[in-house]
Amino acid sequence: MTIESIQVELAERAYPILIGPDLLAGHPDLAALIAGRQVAVVTNDTVAGLHGHTLQAALAGASQLIEVRLPEGEDHKNWQALDRICTAMLAARFDRHSVIVAFGGGVVGDIAGFAAAIYQRGIDFVQVPTTLLAQVDSSVGGKTAINHPLGKNMIGAFHQPKLVLADTRALSTLPAREVSAGLAEVIKHGAIADLNYLASIERDIAALRACDSAAMTRAVRRSCEIKAEVVAADEREADLRAILNFGHTFGHAIEAGAGYGSWLHGEAVGCGMVMAADLSMRLGLIDSAFVDRLTALIAAAGLPTRAPAWPPDRYLELMSNDKKASQGTPRFVLLDRPGHAVLRRVPREELVATLSACCHPA
Amino acid sequence: MTIESIQVELAERAYPILIGPDLLAGHPDLAALIAGRQVAVVTNDTVAGLHGHTLQAALAGASQLIEVRLPEGEDHKNWQALDRICTAMLAARFDRHSVIVAFGGGVVGDIAGFAAAIYQRGIDFVQVPTTLLAQVDSSVGGKTAINHPLGKNMIGAFHQPKLVLADTRALSTLPAREVSAGLAEVIKHGAIADLNYLASIERDIAALRACDSAAMTRAVRRSCEIKAEVVAADEREADLRAILNFGHTFGHAIEAGAGYGSWLHGEAVGCGMVMAADLSMRLGLIDSAFVDRLTALIAAAGLPTRAPAWPPDRYLELMSNDKKASQGTPRFVLLDRPGHAVLRRVPREELVATLSACCHPA
Repeated sequence: MTIESIQVELAERAYPILIGPDLLAGHPDLAALIAGRQVAVVTNDTVAGLHGHTLQAALAGASQLIEVRLPEGEDHKNWQALDRICTAMLAARFDRHSVIVAFGGGVVGDIAGFAAAIYQRGIDFVQVPTTLLAQVDSSVGGKTAINHPLGKNMIGAFHQPKLVLADTRALSTLPAREVSAGLAEVIKHGAIADLNYLASIERDIAALRACDSAAMTRAVRRSCEIKAEVVAADEREADLRAILNFGHTFGHAIEAGAGYGSWLHGEAVGCGMVMAADLSMRLGLIDSAFVDRLTALIAAAGLPTRAPAWPPDRYLELMSNDKKASQGTPRFVLLDRPGHAVLRRVPREELVATLSACCHPA
Repeated sequence: MTIESIQVELAERAYPILIGPDLLAGHPDLAALIAGRQVAVVTNDTVAGLHGHTLQAALAGASQLIEVRLPEGEDHKNWQALDRICTAMLAARFDRHSVIVAFGGGVVGDIAGFAAAIYQRGIDFVQVPTTLLAQVDSSVGGKTAINHPLGKNMIGAFHQPKLVLADTRALSTLPAREVSAGLAEVIKHGAIADLNYLASIERDIAALRACDSAAMTRAVRRSCEIKAEVVAADEREADLRAILNFGHTFGHAIEAGAGYGSWLHGEAVGCGMVMAADLSMRLGLIDSAFVDRLTALIAAAGLPTRAPAWPPDRYLELMSNDKKASQGTPRFVLLDRPGHAVLRRVPREELVATLSACCHPA
């Protein structure tokens, strides 16, 4: 099977995403990038155990190779993890020409990318995402961050990788729940930007859940293309880029309210998209048939479609902490037609109606 | 007395530096920038006690104003200080349109600027430097950082302020030792870039040590111009910008070896410049008359010209940790003629000769 390649166009920070099976075993672009340089692989026990040996061969050209294993889970995405990476690199005397390889899912990618953004004021990094979520979402766009007890992803940087290797065969080692979580972002890309793509996801949904490598390569490629187009048009999230947050304002509220780690990010986003679609319908932007169609696909992906049964006020409180809030008033990404998203302020009564409708027990 | 203005030319990140007496009391550019926005003033007890009330009036147009006081000194330039700022801003629900005002010396500026670089992935900040060192050095160039137990300024970001206000009258409240430390960087700018400026510093040295406002305004202006020209030509320190590190490789070794805070940064740089000039002479680049002239001016500024009497091996070890090291071999900024600097690798024997000559007891 061939390797697909997408170029993320960001002027002097443009970089390629390579997508296909068996990329962990190595690629000439990776070998060229790391040749003769100090390389720190940031990963965790699970990923290192499954794929560490394979990747190590691909990094044989480094002048010095260290591995930093982070504790797993969203609640370790903090200052301590960042310090662990910086300390290991400083102890090994890594200079500013060093390269960080982020080898794992979104948590590893966010922390390792942020470490690359601030180690000696910024060094190169390579993303080797091993979860579907990371391949279609965090590997494009250069957003890096850690969490703070007062909010998720509140501290971070925009820092673009030099190269992304998305090995679609590696996805077959993922737990089913993580595959579903990744499919939430895949579905999101169809819903906000490409109705034909949404239809192909509907057709492929069983193959995608089974991690069929060909279906995965198609989906990762098209999702990365969509995200790359949006990011290239609006790197710093002035406005357009915000459409990628479809489902995220609700999703972040669910994640924060339930305690980080109890819902997977993709699960919360899946459920958040149902809520955002419901809100779009209440504002007269889309009809209920499309809400049902999207809800059915989210359910078919193995994702929850019902939010926790908290009172609307709790959601409003949780959402007011979200950093998408502009001077305190949350804005929402809504569908103004199937396959197209916009950013809007929403009257409180429609918002409360959506919260009441989507969050009671099924 | 008029307010001088310099524009730092960095394409879409260009910003003005305003220099003159009584700027703390307010300026239309500052009022326009902060109007209706959430503002966090990051400072310390000393600066807040001396000048806090004055600046508060200048920030009256903010929609919300908080103050974060950091513990003083280089050894508090760490993750904890960064977290303190982020926590205070999150607790006050500051959004991504907030502004940080860095109000103090270099330590406050470095930490507050870094917090602005990473709070919600980057917000605006204003520098209001209250020490001479900060006015002529850290207010230009966008370097922000914290220290790590394994090295100074090892973790940070390039993040340009939107505006710098350098109040030269405020300098009169500085302890004499801090004035001298700031003059080290002033002298450096003359030595590396402008022999006429160096001569004017020699003429003005008594007035500068006495914090005469007119002499200070002239020096801060010319020093900022020189630094701004270098930074505009090389924002990310590929090579040219490195000449601003004249005296710093030795200086950092002294600071690190003595324990941060025991030598002021400017004191270590003053001494480091004597060593770098000595090394330039040993390599046949300048004559001993210029080394003597520079050493005399550094002494006249009230700065030490003799480094601690450690064995050369200790210096070599300390310097090999410096992040200017490229793949382990330290490079040095040398004078290839009076008023002009270059970056060079240096044979070990000349380096050891300089260490032996400059570091024995006087």
